[in-house]
Parts: sequence; C-alpha cells; structure tokens
Amino acid sequence: MIYVTYDEAIAKMTKGLSRFMDEATAAHFAGIFAGNSLDGVYSHGMNRYPRYLEDMKSGLCDPSVTQAEKVSGLGGLEVWDAHFGVGPLIAEQMAQRAIELARTHGIACVALRNNSHWLRAGRYGLMMADAGMMGICMTNTCMNLVAYGAKEPSTGNNPITFAIPRRAGSLVMDMAVSQYAFGKLEIMAQEGGMLDTACGYDLEGNLTNDPRKITQSKLMTPMALWKGSALSIMIDLMTAMLSLGRTSLEIGKPGDGEKGMSQMFICMNPAAVIDMDKAEEQMERTVAFLNRLEPKEGMSGVHAPGENLEKTRQRNRERGIPVTEGTWQKILDSAV
Amino acid sequence: MIYVTYDEAIAKMTKGLSRFMDEATAAHFAGIFAGNSLDGVYSHGMNRYPRYLEDMKSGLCDPSVTQAEKVSGLGGLEVWDAHFGVGPLIAEQMAQRAIELARTHGIACVALRNNSHWLRAGRYGLMMADAGMMGICMTNTCMNLVAYGAKEPSTGNNPITFAIPRRAGSLVMDMAVSQYAFGKLEIMAQEGGMLDTACGYDLEGNLTNDPRKITQSKLMTPMALWKGSALSIMIDLMTAMLSLGRTSLEIGKPGDGEKGMSQMFICMNPAAVIDMDKAEEQMERTVAFLNRLEPKEGMSGVHAPGENLEKTRQRNRERGIPVTEGTWQKILDSAV
Repeated sequence: MIYVTYDEAIAKMTKGLSRFMDEATAAHFAGIFAGNSLDGVYSHGMNRYPRYLEDMKSGLCDPSVTQAEKVSGLGGLEVWDAHFGVGPLIAEQMAQRAIELARTHGIACVALRNNSHWLRAGRYGLMMADAGMMGICMTNTCMNLVAYGAKEPSTGNNPITFAIPRRAGSLVMDMAVSQYAFGKLEIMAQEGGMLDTACGYDLEGNLTNDPRKITQSKLMTPMALWKGSALSIMIDLMTAMLSLGRTSLEIGKPGDGEKGMSQMFICMNPAAVIDMDKAEEQMERTVAFLNRLEPKEGMSGVHAPGENLEKTRQRNRERGIPVTEGTWQKILDSAV
Repeated sequence: MIYVTYDEAIAKMTKGLSRFMDEATAAHFAGIFAGNSLDGVYSHGMNRYPRYLEDMKSGLCDPSVTQAEKVSGLGGLEVWDAHFGVGPLIAEQMAQRAIELARTHGIACVALRNNSHWLRAGRYGLMMADAGMMGICMTNTCMNLVAYGAKEPSTGNNPITFAIPRRAGSLVMDMAVSQYAFGKLEIMAQEGGMLDTACGYDLEGNLTNDPRKITQSKLMTPMALWKGSALSIMIDLMTAMLSLGRTSLEIGKPGDGEKGMSQMFICMNPAAVIDMDKAEEQMERTVAFLNRLEPKEGMSGVHAPGENLEKTRQRNRERGIPVTEGTWQKILDSAV
C-alpha cells in the first residue's frame, strides 16, 4: 500500500481520462474516483479506475455520453435514460435533479435506466444530505449472488443507501446486500481468518464461514440469508420497473460486463415540513446515546452510519490516500 | 392450533373492540387483525389482539383517536400527528393519503409521528401496490435489539416494507431488521433446533445460533451484524426526523410499552411515467427465471417476495385461519 495526495491522484487520472472526454469533465470524473477513496470507500474509488478505462475502451460504457435524457415525468417523479454513458457523472446529475425537484415538490424520485456503473452508492445519498435533504438511492447490478433457495448466481449484489442531513456531518449508510464485498473476501482468504457469519457456499454447496472456500466456489449469498435475498430481488424489480430499464437477469452474468443498470434517486426535503433545529437536537440525543454505550469486548462501540466520515477524510488528507501499488502503477501508466 | 373462519374471527373481535369505538370502526379494525392472519402473517395478526385491548384499556393507545391530524406539507410531502391513536387505522389512512398524493405529484411521502403499533408493515405497502403504486414504508419501535458493537438493547427491530404492483398479485417484502422475530425464537427454542445463522448473544455475551440461549439472555442482534444494525439506526433517525417524532431512545425499552412510533409512507406512481404493460412483461420474465431455478437441496426454490400470498389466503379461507387456543380463548372472552 502506498499513500498519494488527493491532488496528485486527480491530476494523474485527469490525464488518463482526457483521452475519452474534455479536460474539465475528465477532472470532475477523476475527482469522483479520488473523492470516494478519500472518504475511505476504497472498494469503489481509485481501485475501479483501471477497469473504467477498459470499459470505455471496449465500449461497455460510452464516454461520449455524459448527460442523460429525460424520458417522462409527473411532478416530483421523472424517468431518465443514460444511454450507457459515464455512470458516476450521470448519477451525480440525477441526484442533483432529485434535489431540485424536492425543493419544489417536497419529495422527488428520479428513475434512471441504462446507466453504467455508478461506483459508490453513498456518494449520491451524501450529495442530497449535504444539500439538507434525506436520500434513498439504489441500483441493481448483474447476477453475482446466489438467491436464497437456489444453487447458482441468480440475483444481484444490489446496493442501497440512506442519507440524513446533519450539521456535524451528514449521516450515510451505504450497503450492498452481501455481507462482504467479494474483494474483501479475497483479502480475508489470504489472511486466513474465518468470517463472523456464513456468507457463501463451498464447492459442495454447504454454507460456510471460510472465505477461502467461498472465493473458490464464487458462490456468495446475500446477507442474512432469505432477508438479503428478498431485499436484492425487490431492489432489482423496483429500479427496473420504475425506469423501464434492465433487471439483473437482463444485465446478465458478471462475465457479461455489467452493462445498463437501473437506478433510483429518492430525495426528501425535511426543512420544508419540520423545524430542523428541533429535529437535529433530537437526533443528536440519540447519536450521543449510541456513542456513550459501553462497547462490547474487542469492539469500538456504536456509531451512527457515516459518523466517522470527516475523521477519515481528514486522515487521508494528512497522510495521503492509501492505494495499492498495482492500482497506482496503472494510474501512472494511463497518464503518460 | 385451531382453525377459525375469517368471518367468525371478525365477528368476535368486532364485539370486543366495540367497547372502545363505534361498531363500524370496530369491524374495520377487527378486519385488520383477521386480514393479517389470513395473509399468513400470524406474528402481526390476531395474536396481537389481546395486547391491543390491554393497550387501549391502559391508555397506551387512545381508542377515541382514529384519525391523524395534518401538521404541515409541501407538494407530495406531508407530516401528520397520530396523537397516540389507533395505530393500524391511522396507518391505513396515511397509506391512502400517500396514494392520493402520488396520483397528483408522481411520488409522495407521509411522515407520521406519535402513532401506536401499526401491526404489520406489509399491509401498507400492499395497499399501495394494490392501487397500482410502488411503496416503501417503515417504522421505528422501542429498543429491543443490541446495536452492533454494544452489550445491551439499544436500537429497534424496525420494519421496512417494499411493495410492487403486479397483475398476478402484488409483490411485497416485509421485514424487520432482526433475523427472526423474538416469538419465532421462543418457538424454535421449544423445538430444540439450532438457527441457520447467529442472531443473538448468550448470557456470557458470545454470538450464538442456539435459540434457547438467546431467549434466556433476551439479547437479540440485528440481522447481518453491522449491516442490520446500520439499517436499524437509519430507519429510526429518518422516520423520527421527517415526522419530528420520537426516536427508539425516546420510545424506550420494551417494558415501557412501545408508545408513539415514527413512521414513513413513501408512494410512487409508475403508471404516470412508464408503460406498465412493458414493465410487467419484463418483471414476469425475471419472476419466471427465479421460479425456474433448480432448488437447493431441501429447499423450495426461489420466489419473488409475496408471490405466494394469494395461495396462503386461499388456503386460510378454505381450512380456516390458524390461531393458538390461548389467543382464540382471549378473543372469545372479549366478546361476551
């Protein structure tokens, strides 16, 4: 692991991305990769940059499309089509559109079809919360999880994010429906430990806590067995229906390249209907209560989701953003 | 277990409830208890009737309040106050209000504070889906779960429901954030089996799959460890902020009686923005794919959440609704 400054990371990636789009757009896109890593979401930041370059080269993602097209709408509800353009750029615009609509309508939802990978779900929730709004965003993806009751990958590791505005720093929960990311399992398999909870099958089809066996079989299950499985299916059907976009089945298997996801950006405007001072005061009482709880042995206590975000950012600004040597080398190679 | 007809169940409960409200309202309320059981949600149906009578006697729920009061609103977003009235009656009205608002605004959300127990989350999602809408509803509750990282009950087993309209019968996922309901753990403890996944601590504070140990300690954890815990906290803070209602901390411990929950009813109108024929066709392809998957050994395959609802209803109409003798006796006693 090496540490690079936020500015250097952006400069190098901007250069690599400029082969696909104008420099201002490239700099913005580079800032999304770097920003996600700065926030500590290393699984959906700079590590994904080499793959995004590949996807733009192969045509899986069309780098000439950086804006979505509005398809239809009624009041606070709109449908847009991303036409397989640049996922995170378009997702940001949709979050922004939902924020604008929620200012007028109190609540809004933008449903987006045919988007490329948006990288990090929490980014779009955070945008809303930082604008004083509450957000619920979700996306489907390819069939990379074994639905509960089946033997083969058949549903998506679909992420959902909830975000809440807060003066001390927005709260954000950003979770996919598997217990661990597959990349995390690979790291734990190398380290040789066991998982806290079963989250996949071995080659014989038995549920196991052993990450080596799951990375071997590639049969990862949703978190919480039938519950995560149900959540995965509902996120898939809901995002695809409302956007008239693809379901996980139509996006295909992981080898098919994750093309054309269906996404939803729900945004609510609490300041329009309640006294935010009172609401924040009350929220702080609960957050303080959680923070004061006696921690379980060997654990660091309870925090509201996202509560430590600013601390993580600060640390990564000071010591640099951690990135694997392999990823950094690819970033440098792209910038020549 | 005995079996009673839907009509008889309603007749008896109407009589008992008529001591607290006019007969038409009592009949409607009785229909909610019976209807939830008819749908197979035995944990949030007739079994809760005796407790609701107690709560109305003790004043925890005010039976004279059967309508909520509008507090504020902008476009599709409204805040209402239930004033500790009759939970399921008011929750139905809020779901209905969200449906009406979504007809005009495309998407709507009603945030409700100070409601009594709404019984079954899925009921309100289903109302929306049966009206051609998509629903996302959630509520907080008292601190009956151990937040991940803590030692003591400190967050709520907060339910969330997603519902999708479908001609063949609406789809609905209705889940609280624990892996099992506590009542289900008690039944499994009596039966002597082990759980599929750890979902609580023993008296020494170790995670365990043994339902006997968890019913002893009463220390149940959220599903999927940190993920269910994060979801629980976010549902709590979101519902309480948007309604300016109580958080789980303020609702208190289970012994305090679950008074004054905060709830959200989000409703989206897909028919206003997309071609529902095409959307349903596409959804049916995915549902059929899931149904066709080879089942894992000993399991019944994969179904979309709620897919079997009509079958369950039909069976309970034919053979009667299963109810424990204890519950039925209390229903009969209330009806004299």
